[in-house]
Amino acid sequence: MRRVAIVGTGLTKWGVRNATYKELVQEAGKDLFDDVPNLDKKHVDSLFVGSALVDRLAFQAYPAPLVAEQLGLTPSRMVMRTEMACVSGQSAIRVAWASIVAGLSDVAVVVGAEKMNTPNMAETQASMACVLDREWDGVNGLNAPPYFALIAQRHMHEYGTTEEQLAEVSVKNHDYAATNPYAHYPKRVSREKVLSSAKIAPPLKLLDCSGITDGAAAVLMTHEGLAKKYTDTPVFVEGLGQAQSGSLVVNLESLTTWHPLRRAAQEAFKMAGVTIRDMDLAETHDCFTISEIMEYEDLGLCEKGQGGQFVMDGQSRIGGTLPTNLRGGLLGCGHPLGATGVAQAIEIVRQFKAQVPEDRYVGGEWGLCHNLSGNANNHALMVLRRGG
Amino acid sequence: MRRVAIVGTGLTKWGVRNATYKELVQEAGKDLFDDVPNLDKKHVDSLFVGSALVDRLAFQAYPAPLVAEQLGLTPSRMVMRTEMACVSGQSAIRVAWASIVAGLSDVAVVVGAEKMNTPNMAETQASMACVLDREWDGVNGLNAPPYFALIAQRHMHEYGTTEEQLAEVSVKNHDYAATNPYAHYPKRVSREKVLSSAKIAPPLKLLDCSGITDGAAAVLMTHEGLAKKYTDTPVFVEGLGQAQSGSLVVNLESLTTWHPLRRAAQEAFKMAGVTIRDMDLAETHDCFTISEIMEYEDLGLCEKGQGGQFVMDGQSRIGGTLPTNLRGGLLGCGHPLGATGVAQAIEIVRQFKAQVPEDRYVGGEWGLCHNLSGNANNHALMVLRRGG
Repeated sequence: MRRVAIVGTGLTKWGVRNATYKELVQEAGKDLFDDVPNLDKKHVDSLFVGSALVDRLAFQAYPAPLVAEQLGLTPSRMVMRTEMACVSGQSAIRVAWASIVAGLSDVAVVVGAEKMNTPNMAETQASMACVLDREWDGVNGLNAPPYFALIAQRHMHEYGTTEEQLAEVSVKNHDYAATNPYAHYPKRVSREKVLSSAKIAPPLKLLDCSGITDGAAAVLMTHEGLAKKYTDTPVFVEGLGQAQSGSLVVNLESLTTWHPLRRAAQEAFKMAGVTIRDMDLAETHDCFTISEIMEYEDLGLCEKGQGGQFVMDGQSRIGGTLPTNLRGGLLGCGHPLGATGVAQAIEIVRQFKAQVPEDRYVGGEWGLCHNLSGNANNHALMVLRRGG
Repeated sequence: MRRVAIVGTGLTKWGVRNATYKELVQEAGKDLFDDVPNLDKKHVDSLFVGSALVDRLAFQAYPAPLVAEQLGLTPSRMVMRTEMACVSGQSAIRVAWASIVAGLSDVAVVVGAEKMNTPNMAETQASMACVLDREWDGVNGLNAPPYFALIAQRHMHEYGTTEEQLAEVSVKNHDYAATNPYAHYPKRVSREKVLSSAKIAPPLKLLDCSGITDGAAAVLMTHEGLAKKYTDTPVFVEGLGQAQSGSLVVNLESLTTWHPLRRAAQEAFKMAGVTIRDMDLAETHDCFTISEIMEYEDLGLCEKGQGGQFVMDGQSRIGGTLPTNLRGGLLGCGHPLGATGVAQAIEIVRQFKAQVPEDRYVGGEWGLCHNLSGNANNHALMVLRRGG
């Protein structure tokens, strides 16, 4: 079986951007092509685009050909857009991986992009809510902040998790975002500032929530035989896992244990032949502070219910058990849905290539990426390994 | 490399359905599960959903988990929605194929579904137009009927193609739809009726255009080692090809030759080790009558410019060079975007299993499926072979 590597990376500045979807894609593409000067665009035979809400927010369906055109590509093998809400970006990487392993593609560009900020933010919020089943959870208002607030309340009730512990996740991730020039929120926040920020859905406050952000990210992927043509340090995708529970909140297996995350992690680590203890760093899906706390637990970094203590003890900082979300996470970088999963992979690659500022540099050999989508009914994981 | 087969099929009745997106999915799922009584749903490890405009027309993003729930599935490997406008359905089959070959999936359900008819058909039409680049072709009104009319006018100018020849495509496809109980338009039409139907965009009239249709289709796919568990007649996916030109009309290589179709066909036939002459039947993308005429030509069934004569001579009917669109095509069945590519594959499978009415039965060993999307800037082909 062909091994598949990420061999180039490109990012835009994330934020409230005065740029269209197409302009964001161009910007990420330019950054990617600058990173792989040996690439002849004619050799890119496939394109995979991860975008969640482009149909609604940019009034643009069928974005893949348009992305191809912006990047100056005319792929002759595979062209596809993947949509899985907040897992859209990692989905694009997964299908690129499968396509290359299966021999349908040799050299693939993967783009994740989202234009979230529009002239009508009420419309943006309504569109974000259409990720839920519109006949049930949607009309009942169970969109992301109230739903994750429900989880947080239950977690606090069952395990004694505190608002201070939630806040510490935001403090940590903003600390790391502070030196990330691509981040939407590149500045430190104190625990007091998080705790006193505007209430969104109790116990979640504004700084417990990831932002509404425009941004794009792009990677070049190929098989081992071609990887060294583009980089001295290919980063191999060694494990993939994804699992689904019910769709509606009422059909989830649990509020406070993410069983699909556990199953997906088991699958991904088994495929890579490693365990969570072999990871040198992780990018997890901190859409809300409570999410990252649950992720520590369901990834097996600590006992169930101890995630709050884990972050308070600095175990997810550099020097701790597993440095987590060193680019600043969704809390610090913002969350342009389709771009997030691709940008997480880029953080791992740039860490392995020592292309990040020294104060958040860890490097190492093994990295983990995790995304969840909707009401956390779908979880996807990817295990990356430094080659070269 | 693992060979991958379609081992079960399910369809809904297509038409203006008093049914939601979820209900259509359920109905196709039930038909599929009835077709594979040996299937234990717990063994379905992956789900791929092809839907183009569900975000806009059903106000429902992220449909894949919702489809899983409707079908009673909780996939533990891959879950993904693919969107490529009119190629969305075939895209879902392609990614299922790649996922199974790559070992990420063993047993996959693929669903194509679209709910097109809504209480506000002006909104439906606006949503369909957002398949085009909204900043250029979209605002200039180059949506599907005017654009394919432009092609037809140019084809008539260059090659002397006539309105009668265009009409004959519609006559043929309605002839075959007439005995297809799943078709939106299951009745014959005369050439005179096509020619005198309402003008849409000259030279295209109402009966030169495929309809706005609700419908769903589903298949079960697995690798060769498991195929016989579910069917005596697995149908193997032996060749895949896809190619892209520019996105904007101004960047297409030609109006009257579909170069991406030629490249994709070359790729798919090379992979399958056969040629167009080995095909026993074909499903091609007759979104408009002119499309099917161009497809004869660019698939190499006749010389460029001779497509009109080809259909007049009955060469695409049973007994001719290559029986084409025997289920009735998009013209006879209607065109629920994401469902079409899956339903085309189902026609080939049901032909090979002699599950179609005798008057359109051809059977044989090799079948071709072709889709195009947008302004024909992307073409995808799939070569199927009867096993068993």
